[in-house]
Amino acid sequence: MGKILFDTDDNRRRYRHTASHIMAQAVKRLYPDVKLAIGPATNEGFYYDFECEKAFTKEDLDAIETEMKKIISQNLPIERFVLPRDEALTLMSNEPYKTELINDLPTDAEITFYRQGDFTDLCAGPHMERTGDIKAIKLLSEGGSSGAYWRGSEKNKMLARIYGTAFPDKKSLDAFIKAREDALKRDHNKLGRELKLFTTSEIIGQGLPLLMPKGARIVQILQRFIEDEEQKRGYVLTKTPFMSKSDLYKVSGHWDHYKDSMFLLGNEEKDSDVYALRPMTCPFQFVVYNAEQHSYRDLPIRYNETSSLFRNEESGEMHGLIRVRQFTLSEGHLVVRPDQLKDEFKGVVDLIQYIMKILGIDGDIWYRFSKWDANNKDKYIGDADMWEQTQDLMRAIIDEIGIKYVEADGEAAFYGPKLDIQTRNVYGKEDTIITIQIDFALAARFNMTYVDSDGAKKNPIIIHRSSLGCYERTLAMLVEKYAGAFPLWLAPVQAKVLSISEKFNDYAQKVSNQLTSYGLRIETDLRGEKIGFKIREGRLERVPYLIIVGEKEEAGGLISLWSRAAGDEGQTSIDTFIARANDEIARKVIIPLRQ
Amino acid sequence: MGKILFDTDDNRRRYRHTASHIMAQAVKRLYPDVKLAIGPATNEGFYYDFECEKAFTKEDLDAIETEMKKIISQNLPIERFVLPRDEALTLMSNEPYKTELINDLPTDAEITFYRQGDFTDLCAGPHMERTGDIKAIKLLSEGGSSGAYWRGSEKNKMLARIYGTAFPDKKSLDAFIKAREDALKRDHNKLGRELKLFTTSEIIGQGLPLLMPKGARIVQILQRFIEDEEQKRGYVLTKTPFMSKSDLYKVSGHWDHYKDSMFLLGNEEKDSDVYALRPMTCPFQFVVYNAEQHSYRDLPIRYNETSSLFRNEESGEMHGLIRVRQFTLSEGHLVVRPDQLKDEFKGVVDLIQYIMKILGIDGDIWYRFSKWDANNKDKYIGDADMWEQTQDLMRAIIDEIGIKYVEADGEAAFYGPKLDIQTRNVYGKEDTIITIQIDFALAARFNMTYVDSDGAKKNPIIIHRSSLGCYERTLAMLVEKYAGAFPLWLAPVQAKVLSISEKFNDYAQKVSNQLTSYGLRIETDLRGEKIGFKIREGRLERVPYLIIVGEKEEAGGLISLWSRAAGDEGQTSIDTFIARANDEIARKVIIPLRQ
Repeated sequence: MGKILFDTDDNRRRYRHTASHIMAQAVKRLYPDVKLAIGPATNEGFYYDFECEKAFTKEDLDAIETEMKKIISQNLPIERFVLPRDEALTLMSNEPYKTELINDLPTDAEITFYRQGDFTDLCAGPHMERTGDIKAIKLLSEGGSSGAYWRGSEKNKMLARIYGTAFPDKKSLDAFIKAREDALKRDHNKLGRELKLFTTSEIIGQGLPLLMPKGARIVQILQRFIEDEEQKRGYVLTKTPFMSKSDLYKVSGHWDHYKDSMFLLGNEEKDSDVYALRPMTCPFQFVVYNAEQHSYRDLPIRYNETSSLFRNEESGEMHGLIRVRQFTLSEGHLVVRPDQLKDEFKGVVDLIQYIMKILGIDGDIWYRFSKWDANNKDKYIGDADMWEQTQDLMRAIIDEIGIKYVEADGEAAFYGPKLDIQTRNVYGKEDTIITIQIDFALAARFNMTYVDSDGAKKNPIIIHRSSLGCYERTLAMLVEKYAGAFPLWLAPVQAKVLSISEKFNDYAQKVSNQLTSYGLRIETDLRGEKIGFKIREGRLERVPYLIIVGEKEEAGGLISLWSRAAGDEGQTSIDTFIARANDEIARKVIIPLRQ
Repeated sequence: MGKILFDTDDNRRRYRHTASHIMAQAVKRLYPDVKLAIGPATNEGFYYDFECEKAFTKEDLDAIETEMKKIISQNLPIERFVLPRDEALTLMSNEPYKTELINDLPTDAEITFYRQGDFTDLCAGPHMERTGDIKAIKLLSEGGSSGAYWRGSEKNKMLARIYGTAFPDKKSLDAFIKAREDALKRDHNKLGRELKLFTTSEIIGQGLPLLMPKGARIVQILQRFIEDEEQKRGYVLTKTPFMSKSDLYKVSGHWDHYKDSMFLLGNEEKDSDVYALRPMTCPFQFVVYNAEQHSYRDLPIRYNETSSLFRNEESGEMHGLIRVRQFTLSEGHLVVRPDQLKDEFKGVVDLIQYIMKILGIDGDIWYRFSKWDANNKDKYIGDADMWEQTQDLMRAIIDEIGIKYVEADGEAAFYGPKLDIQTRNVYGKEDTIITIQIDFALAARFNMTYVDSDGAKKNPIIIHRSSLGCYERTLAMLVEKYAGAFPLWLAPVQAKVLSISEKFNDYAQKVSNQLTSYGLRIETDLRGEKIGFKIREGRLERVPYLIIVGEKEEAGGLISLWSRAAGDEGQTSIDTFIARANDEIARKVIIPLRQ
């Protein structure tokens, strides 16, 4: 038996790639007619794609997992061998996807195979030495196999994909499964639907989620918080249209550098004017700037807008509130003089850090300095000197602020380098949530000027920025962060009044009305159900406070309080509760969910 | 000389149509090569369209007006005569548009002409008896003639249109001109730009205005006011996507009844899915409703949304913030049981009346009951019985509320009758600003149900409604209503702090900061300009309060106050002003502009 190495990415991939072959072997034993596509290792496990008559059911997967364990206990040796092309094609003559892969190989490529017992696969390797090296496996496609296109293209045939994972011992596997179950419970795409924050619809289309009343309320509260905070910090609001003639995007460079991601209205060959839905707000706020002549005294101007944007994502890429075709960005552009750039950049970082702290996610983010790809100059506007100078300047500013960051080549916007704020979702997937960009290019393209103190017209510098990022994504992130237990100031329902029996419904309604009149968001549960059932439901809905009223409460003009923070708190007065709730809202207190 | 009748629409039209012929005669005398198109009377005057080498300048119009006065003083008799078709064509052989009109006449039509001196026009009449009957005329195309397509179609030639008006005496004409000048000063499309509320851009496109910071701030305040008032009244918010697959619109009926007004994304012949930008929010809120099963206890549900909508208006129809391709509606749908319909309808009317009163436009609106056109059934969904019953029901409810209304056939939505709230713009043009509709048709189409107390699933009734109408249009209406002098709670800049000289800029900034910290929207004017100039500019910007600070104010820690309501108010303390402003904001006081 070979030594089991699981300490590096490469070693983990080798281990799990072997598990993938074991899965394919099990599938071929049980379903000999299935055709093999590909089966790589992933960050968290592995998958294999198969062509088959119909998708694998949950029962099929149970059988496959059992067969895999049998193959592991057989401890088959895994052998590598090489064949000339004609013999490779003969060996794989019954496997059309493998044949296609062989034909795509360069003529001088070595064509390698791995064999374990009755199973042979075209494969570059590497692999473990024996099937018995794999100690703990688990298939992860709970509901059955999922669909995936051959080579990821909609034009190709849909295959059946089975996900799994493997670990060197059962303890690690169990820990992984437990963490994954916890993550699944927090997954916004599941929990967000259960909590009735959003829904989607086949007849509306993919990537176009609908915020239901509770989700829409949270976004409304976030939007007001952001717009008010920005107003305090001297931002001025705009409200600009969501579409434009292509003329605008030709000036901005989006037409040359971003058109594939845009929704077009009209036909370029037939119509005199082609319109497009906007993927970014920049050129619209530039047009607002240009509606008046500005002087050096007017700068900096800090424009913000709660902006709807549209990106024509591929249909395979949609996910919940995260990968969508329409979203709402806390967008903004600062128009600044060179002597103001550093302070304004710092101001933007300060605003973002403040917001992340209020939302309680300041510990979950890191910074990425995203530079251009000097080997791919035609993806960008502006010349190399401008890029290098802008990047040097940006690095100096970030270093002065004292931010620690990772660097990434080729991740800049087409018009300038970025400071990205990164985070991971509940499954560990990295994502950019906010960006700040410095742009020396677009002001000149749009002929944006200010009259300087010397009377000369000059181009300002633009800082592109978001403060919160995208509202839909933030909602998703907060669902996962708090497992749906939103801080009181954000909770769509802040308290729910439950009557112990229908006799006390009048009093419950009176309490509810009083709380509502103080601006609290209240629901009532006046059904003839048992109080224990009503409490359980209120807890499942993650309502911060449950207010229980019955005979004693009505007699004393009191309420009984259950809180997410402390559980049963006994009786208290309505006024005391209102004062406490208002204080908790004003201070935007974060209280973790009790398990 | 004939008797001059000017008391009915018909008489006014005859009078002004004669003035139009006098204008055409003057044009032909001065520019013999010009070709005549048509020259009807309008509600406010008349116009005539001409084909000519180049547009008429201001100087041309002065010469035409002088020539018209000469024709009037010649007091030429106006004679009607009839010609057979061949002779009519011969007479008009040099007038291609008249020739086209004659050829379009039915074969049995009487072809009539009117002649006055050296001028003859193909015309159905009627006319005054002599040119001298016209007592007071004025051309209204101040900047020169405007463009208009022959027969209103972009495919035809562009003609030069001259507008004018005529009255039976100079006093009436002068009053009209004065009123029109006042209207022009209030015209949102002029004043709204001067006050920097909005702008438009050639490279973005027609009907796509951009709200600049001051306009966007007003809309933000209005939006919060509406959303808060609706929340108080039990509405729940949604936030739904701006586009959908055609599948949704096929269910709703928009695809059959509204497609021409929609922006499509994609090609019906080529693409498997065609998307469209939404012209209304209804089907999206229906999908939200359908995301859960509802019981009779859940109803009524009152959905609201601050909703962006898109309508593909013809390019000739755009105007300022009024006729646009994208707008934001205070949209909403009430899902109700039959026994709730009357009260919920009343609640909607009450909300609208409350809002109109707060905005000060309750005296400027009237109601229109808009019914279907029974002779044009294929424009609508649902059968005749349903339409008649729904209309009877709606009429009974409106009558019970005690609203006075006019009736209009053929103005219903395709899915139900409407109660429209009508107003006139500053030029007297009538417009619908808000509608309420009762809809018995769409719930069944969308399979929207609730479980009634008897356990049966039933279709609810839908009330479609807006509360404020469209935000952009409301902004336009308020600009015209208040001539830009917004009530304090809506004013984008509530006070402007002016330093008497730059020596007092620090104190001015201190005062500004203090006012800002109390939530007031403050600007400063710290330029080295004379104080009289700064005050004049502040008044032109319609700022409600100007705060003037110099030596005496700084010494006493005071401010000098100029108010739009009372002019110079002398010195006062900062605290007194803050208390007064906050009270005025809280009570949403309307103070008319001092002229």
